[in-house]
Amino acid sequence: MEFRIEKDTMGEVQVPVNAYYGAQTQRSIENFKIAQDINRMPKEIIRAFAYLKKAAALTNLDAGVLPKEKSDLIGQVCDEILEGKLDNEFPLVVWQTGSGTQSNMNVNEVVAYRAHVIHGGQLTDKDKFVHPNDDVNKSQSSNDTFPTAMHIAAYKMLVETTIPGIKKLRDTLAKKAEAFKHVVKIGRTHFMDATPLTLGQEISGYVAQLDHGLRAINNALPHLSELALGGTAVGTGINTPKGYSENVAAHIAKLTGLPFVTAPNKFEALAAHDAIVEAHGALKTVAVSLMKIANDVRMLSSGPRAGIGEIHIPDNEPGSSIMPGKVNPTQCEALTMIAAQVMGNDVAISVGGANGHFELNVFKPVMIYNFLHSARLIGEGCVSFNDKCAEGIEPIEANIRKHVENSLMLVTALNTKIGYYKAAEIAQKAHKEGTTLKEMAVKLGYVTPEQFDEWVVPGNMVGDIK
Amino acid sequence: MEFRIEKDTMGEVQVPVNAYYGAQTQRSIENFKIAQDINRMPKEIIRAFAYLKKAAALTNLDAGVLPKEKSDLIGQVCDEILEGKLDNEFPLVVWQTGSGTQSNMNVNEVVAYRAHVIHGGQLTDKDKFVHPNDDVNKSQSSNDTFPTAMHIAAYKMLVETTIPGIKKLRDTLAKKAEAFKHVVKIGRTHFMDATPLTLGQEISGYVAQLDHGLRAINNALPHLSELALGGTAVGTGINTPKGYSENVAAHIAKLTGLPFVTAPNKFEALAAHDAIVEAHGALKTVAVSLMKIANDVRMLSSGPRAGIGEIHIPDNEPGSSIMPGKVNPTQCEALTMIAAQVMGNDVAISVGGANGHFELNVFKPVMIYNFLHSARLIGEGCVSFNDKCAEGIEPIEANIRKHVENSLMLVTALNTKIGYYKAAEIAQKAHKEGTTLKEMAVKLGYVTPEQFDEWVVPGNMVGDIK
Amino acid sequence: MEFRIEKDTMGEVQVPVNAYYGAQTQRSIENFKIAQDINRMPKEIIRAFAYLKKAAALTNLDAGVLPKEKSDLIGQVCDEILEGKLDNEFPLVVWQTGSGTQSNMNVNEVVAYRAHVIHGGQLTDKDKFVHPNDDVNKSQSSNDTFPTAMHIAAYKMLVETTIPGIKKLRDTLAKKAEAFKHVVKIGRTHFMDATPLTLGQEISGYVAQLDHGLRAINNALPHLSELALGGTAVGTGINTPKGYSENVAAHIAKLTGLPFVTAPNKFEALAAHDAIVEAHGALKTVAVSLMKIANDVRMLSSGPRAGIGEIHIPDNEPGSSIMPGKVNPTQCEALTMIAAQVMGNDVAISVGGANGHFELNVFKPVMIYNFLHSARLIGEGCVSFNDKCAEGIEPIEANIRKHVENSLMLVTALNTKIGYYKAAEIAQKAHKEGTTLKEMAVKLGYVTPEQFDEWVVPGNMVGDIK
Amino acid sequence: MEFRIEKDTMGEVQVPVNAYYGAQTQRSIENFKIAQDINRMPKEIIRAFAYLKKAAALTNLDAGVLPKEKSDLIGQVCDEILEGKLDNEFPLVVWQTGSGTQSNMNVNEVVAYRAHVIHGGQLTDKDKFVHPNDDVNKSQSSNDTFPTAMHIAAYKMLVETTIPGIKKLRDTLAKKAEAFKHVVKIGRTHFMDATPLTLGQEISGYVAQLDHGLRAINNALPHLSELALGGTAVGTGINTPKGYSENVAAHIAKLTGLPFVTAPNKFEALAAHDAIVEAHGALKTVAVSLMKIANDVRMLSSGPRAGIGEIHIPDNEPGSSIMPGKVNPTQCEALTMIAAQVMGNDVAISVGGANGHFELNVFKPVMIYNFLHSARLIGEGCVSFNDKCAEGIEPIEANIRKHVENSLMLVTALNTKIGYYKAAEIAQKAHKEGTTLKEMAVKLGYVTPEQFDEWVVPGNMVGDIK
Repeated sequence: MEFRIEKDTMGEVQVPVNAYYGAQTQRSIENFKIAQDINRMPKEIIRAFAYLKKAAALTNLDAGVLPKEKSDLIGQVCDEILEGKLDNEFPLVVWQTGSGTQSNMNVNEVVAYRAHVIHGGQLTDKDKFVHPNDDVNKSQSSNDTFPTAMHIAAYKMLVETTIPGIKKLRDTLAKKAEAFKHVVKIGRTHFMDATPLTLGQEISGYVAQLDHGLRAINNALPHLSELALGGTAVGTGINTPKGYSENVAAHIAKLTGLPFVTAPNKFEALAAHDAIVEAHGALKTVAVSLMKIANDVRMLSSGPRAGIGEIHIPDNEPGSSIMPGKVNPTQCEALTMIAAQVMGNDVAISVGGANGHFELNVFKPVMIYNFLHSARLIGEGCVSFNDKCAEGIEPIEANIRKHVENSLMLVTALNTKIGYYKAAEIAQKAHKEGTTLKEMAVKLGYVTPEQFDEWVVPGNMVGDIK
Repeated sequence: MEFRIEKDTMGEVQVPVNAYYGAQTQRSIENFKIAQDINRMPKEIIRAFAYLKKAAALTNLDAGVLPKEKSDLIGQVCDEILEGKLDNEFPLVVWQTGSGTQSNMNVNEVVAYRAHVIHGGQLTDKDKFVHPNDDVNKSQSSNDTFPTAMHIAAYKMLVETTIPGIKKLRDTLAKKAEAFKHVVKIGRTHFMDATPLTLGQEISGYVAQLDHGLRAINNALPHLSELALGGTAVGTGINTPKGYSENVAAHIAKLTGLPFVTAPNKFEALAAHDAIVEAHGALKTVAVSLMKIANDVRMLSSGPRAGIGEIHIPDNEPGSSIMPGKVNPTQCEALTMIAAQVMGNDVAISVGGANGHFELNVFKPVMIYNFLHSARLIGEGCVSFNDKCAEGIEPIEANIRKHVENSLMLVTALNTKIGYYKAAEIAQKAHKEGTTLKEMAVKLGYVTPEQFDEWVVPGNMVGDIK
Repeated sequence: MEFRIEKDTMGEVQVPVNAYYGAQTQRSIENFKIAQDINRMPKEIIRAFAYLKKAAALTNLDAGVLPKEKSDLIGQVCDEILEGKLDNEFPLVVWQTGSGTQSNMNVNEVVAYRAHVIHGGQLTDKDKFVHPNDDVNKSQSSNDTFPTAMHIAAYKMLVETTIPGIKKLRDTLAKKAEAFKHVVKIGRTHFMDATPLTLGQEISGYVAQLDHGLRAINNALPHLSELALGGTAVGTGINTPKGYSENVAAHIAKLTGLPFVTAPNKFEALAAHDAIVEAHGALKTVAVSLMKIANDVRMLSSGPRAGIGEIHIPDNEPGSSIMPGKVNPTQCEALTMIAAQVMGNDVAISVGGANGHFELNVFKPVMIYNFLHSARLIGEGCVSFNDKCAEGIEPIEANIRKHVENSLMLVTALNTKIGYYKAAEIAQKAHKEGTTLKEMAVKLGYVTPEQFDEWVVPGNMVGDIK
Repeated sequence: MEFRIEKDTMGEVQVPVNAYYGAQTQRSIENFKIAQDINRMPKEIIRAFAYLKKAAALTNLDAGVLPKEKSDLIGQVCDEILEGKLDNEFPLVVWQTGSGTQSNMNVNEVVAYRAHVIHGGQLTDKDKFVHPNDDVNKSQSSNDTFPTAMHIAAYKMLVETTIPGIKKLRDTLAKKAEAFKHVVKIGRTHFMDATPLTLGQEISGYVAQLDHGLRAINNALPHLSELALGGTAVGTGINTPKGYSENVAAHIAKLTGLPFVTAPNKFEALAAHDAIVEAHGALKTVAVSLMKIANDVRMLSSGPRAGIGEIHIPDNEPGSSIMPGKVNPTQCEALTMIAAQVMGNDVAISVGGANGHFELNVFKPVMIYNFLHSARLIGEGCVSFNDKCAEGIEPIEANIRKHVENSLMLVTALNTKIGYYKAAEIAQKAHKEGTTLKEMAVKLGYVTPEQFDEWVVPGNMVGDIK
């Protein structure tokens, strides 16, 4: 490979001759040879930086501290980044400095050097028209830009991927709950036969879970909408022009179309990332819900002949490399694996969030890496589960009917007629002797056949169906 | 010990002759010999059951399905439970059936048998005037009572202990932030010297963290205010009179003075405890905040002679059994241990919450045990930390001043005057040669002494102090 | 309450007149009002301290730095503690100083003052014959005693409760595996019908899990056998006589009958508790195994009429307060709740273990509290599950037979005869048309009825049964 | 893109015309659109499959169930995979079926179709010379191949990356411990000044931690060396030739040069992945150790002027985009972020491990994904930390000396001379009045100046230095 020489405050560094990045990026590549092929800084963070660098340039222009030509050039490169044209210029990994300084400098360098080229210069020029620190990073520090990029990326992922994905699944389940609202089936508590409910009611519980989950995520958005930018090095806003914080947040809000505001307390915004911890707590709650839902779907569709077999889900692929004709609930499996991952990510985020010191939390990259991972997995996982599984859920009426009819727990309907103890006696004896409830109830003399038929009606045991 | 005979649907059981509980409680004692001396079902759950049993009796009375005499007796015993008079009658442990059925039955038995005694009967009477299942548990199931008790206990703990505790600490810190708002000190990022801020600003970040944490907890309250009661066995409300759910929630709200409502979806309320997962996510966020705050206090007060030593905290006790005169930041230690516990409890709760099946989650006891533990530890831990540590925080001005004056990062003030690179050169050379910044700045010819004194003023580097 | 005055290096303190503890214990009670009724320092730690204080006294006697009379008195009080006679004298909670200094001083005070009383003195005497620091704590620091007590308590709990409990369950399961080794049943993968195996084979997998778990726990014992005692304040062993470390470890080994040795590196032994982290990792592995086993048992026993119903487990108690005659797999529920707890405790321990600084980890109490909790829950949980559930497992042959006979996955036996694709076609069409495999296989012309009967024999598909 | 038609048991699928994979891989691409750009099945798993497929072909050849020509072709393609020549043919993600069936089939298809091409055929041929199921997957199931690949990949990563990485760091620290064994410095407990030790002693504690961690990892290897292969669908070994299990394990051992054996219990090997859980517990223990070590290094090197500043670590890059000349402990930050990640991964693995059902755990991909991630991060993170930080650790003698000389905790040396209480009085008064210990000791009349100088010698307080 051919190289050119770039320098930073520590001296000269060899950089690939055509790379838009410079000395500090190169140092980071060499200093952090950790999982470089699999753990690049998420592209969502790079894109978020593009928004904020452009917004900073505009704000610096407004404040009269950056000339229009430079501001325009910076904005132009940021647009290129947002279009994905410069993706290869951001090779750094998550496992770098905990402030994300190196990724901030990576962006600063790429923006400056690409701007220089657009402006007519050469990458090999010793001096560039736009300077990474003094121009692109003007009125900024890694300490306020990186958390700002974290919030932009997190917020965008939530509203563009996570929430729509959950909502899509929620809406499908709501349709199923409505469609099956009169399909009376056996209930199961403790994995044991219980009193009946309808399949629609059962599914309505999943809808309620996801509704609550969506609310929880939405509750976390306001904290994420607070941007650290303007706090610079330690939160005091040193080296920023007057009004910078509010103005730059307004620019970001406009560029992204999202309701970002400047954080009322910049010290918190740099030194803690409780907004990430809090919002991921909501994601984890959704993961917990999804584990429950996917487990139920897996178990309800189990069989085909030696399981519960009350619902049918789509056959998407051959299920076994050895057992011919086998079909498995693979979407449930992917979704529950995602739930496990999110539960793990939650701990990584909490450990990171808890270990900030003084004016800076230096677990920023690991926190946002895990956050974006979870947010994306939930969103895309819900869509996959929705499209390839939930939409195809159908009741298997024969099995459902058989299970209800055999159930001993229909005896519960007799509690208010003959008391809990006599009802228990009926169920226990019917179980032991393998009879139907009715046979035993009559045999024990507690009810007449007519009373039994009047009182024990599964369809009357499921409450009001709205 | 003397015994009497009680029976349930499975047969006869020997029960201590004076115990108010009966057969099912006794079976549970014998069946679950697990940590019986340390893991009793939390008393908050027992008290919550007292509210709900009384409310159920009142609602059953309203509905005409329970005579006034029995309803009054049930209410009277519930009042005794709330006064703590029957604490020894609830010996069951967390590690029982996952629906909490046995604790529900423990309450049912104690209420019924104590009512029978109040009514003039003897514990040894074969038939009791009030029946555990048919009267005390009327219109209820364990499956809806236990989650109702979970929400009552959790909500009460949050508003009575957790939130006031956090708020107390938050208010003290806010006072300190105000008191020290002009104490200029060195900032630290990456644990390294950085540009200055004031001690008040630093502490204001903690206040912001706790404010956000309080908001997060408050966001979780509405879901917790939803009560499962009325769902009975599987969520359909079998064996409840018309209007029961709404009415019983209203009674509970009135008895507790808290805004409880009936859960709009009872299937979710029995089969999932996402409200607990979600609310504990907020508690964990606060734990993460407290870890940060307590760590900072511990480190800022470190020394007395070989540490950072910028704040003084109260000397509460001798710190060492071997090192005479040693004093340690013990309140920080208790609080960070609590944070670790809450982070662990969060996983226990998530694992429990994720593993419900069909119509019932059977990790109820472990979930509420961990929840109440965390909520209480945070509340009481904050009060302890507040009273014995935070209130006594005072700046050690001599050390603070020395650290600011020596700082090389004051050079940041020169960025906008001479550029980042020259400023870096000054700092690096001053560090290497052990000079002051000013000496090196002048020596390198980048500024005059007068310029340095004008431009590099720590007090001007901390932004606007409101 | 009546009080007497005790003093420590900070001054005078009022202590309950009859309490054997003194000033520092009393300070801790007042300084840490956190969960005082539910989170006392585990009694196993107090007992472990009794061993070590006695051992230290003997070692100090050997070294000629403590007179025999005092050494004997100290040993005598330690014996009383081990007999449980002084349990009420240890009121301190887990949430105290992170070094456990206050519990060490609690023990020092109780031993000293009780010794003084045995020696003929009065608690109200200003000077005591035995001094908490200078005699009982001689050649010790909290920093080495508390971790020593941690290892003693952890080791003892593992070998006395955890390992025997797991082993008891393992042995029962091994018996069941042998007893049912010829009971051919359907296999299930992805919760879907698969090729057959025997019930004994299925259970043998659980045995293998527990065997591996026991091995993992045993692997962790050597690190736990290393004692910090002799390291004193920071690991250097200041203020200890020559040979103290080895000698005191030998005394502890002799007193406990366990193979304790002095830690080769005292700096690690004070500053880190990786032995606890590592050993708890083994406990968590066992918890993961138990979750799998208990889930399987719960699901295999599900029904009685609308579940899988292949095994019967004992009916231990009425299962429902509303559904008469219901019986639930409550031991499975307790055990899976325990597994959830242990998985949570693991995080609390890891967070604590990771956050030691310099010469001391100050998350000692929270670490050992969680460790002992897990170790005990697993041990007692296994015994409970064993006695009340596993021992009673019996196959329900009728259901098992029905499931095998209906299974479509028996078609796998044809793979090597007619190829995977044709076999798949048979299974898929049989499933779609609701026929038996044989009917479809013959109808499609791939095998003759005779071939089918010869090739597809469930009992031949389960491999060699040893 | 151009396509060809491939088919599986479910029908026809369009596949990119030049792809070596076939219908089932393509279905998986379409069915699991989840994080496809960032979460491919780890390449280590694909390579492990190459070993196993080659070994299976050899074993099938030995058993006479696969012709030599096919066995050779399969082996040849496997070698190509191991050389990385076919990396692009494995596009599937972690979030697929939980058995990894689709990745197994991906390998089967690529091996079969590539073999067909080597054999002279065309990808567009309808029938291929080598069949994915009947030849490549012969005597195998996904259910035994995927866990075998998990163990091969995990074992290799541990012995090739993780253990050498940890060992490298351990050896550097051991050299530093030796080099600095006489550098007397202040100890710190509770982050507060304590009695002295040497820098070498302090670092020796880290060495001991890593030695224990290496032992813990090694303890986990035997379980990982057990291979599931030969268990096929449910553990019974259906459709395998006699002696297959032992023979295929021997082939894998030979091909990899690692001591793999056949798992004694195949039911455990398919249905549980406790070996992964257990081994990751060891990784997490190491993560906990690394957090402690990296935190200490970060804190000891803090400053340069307002921190602890007792050691120097290399300046690797400019530390701040705004603060000129700032250098940060970035390797510590990367390593502690890795520790946080590993602590999170541990929970994901435990949740996955706990949720297997019956004959199969279907969290295989998420478990191995997290395992390999942790194992690699620790290995590469240790190397990075070693090369760029640990090797450059040097004491800053001036600061070290100053801290020792000022320390009040040297008073501990007087305990055995004048008693703990008088010693405490000296320290407390010296602290309050800002004097030296000696001044106060003499002033209080407890020692003569000569005694003080004789008794209080830091270098004598650090024990025996070996």
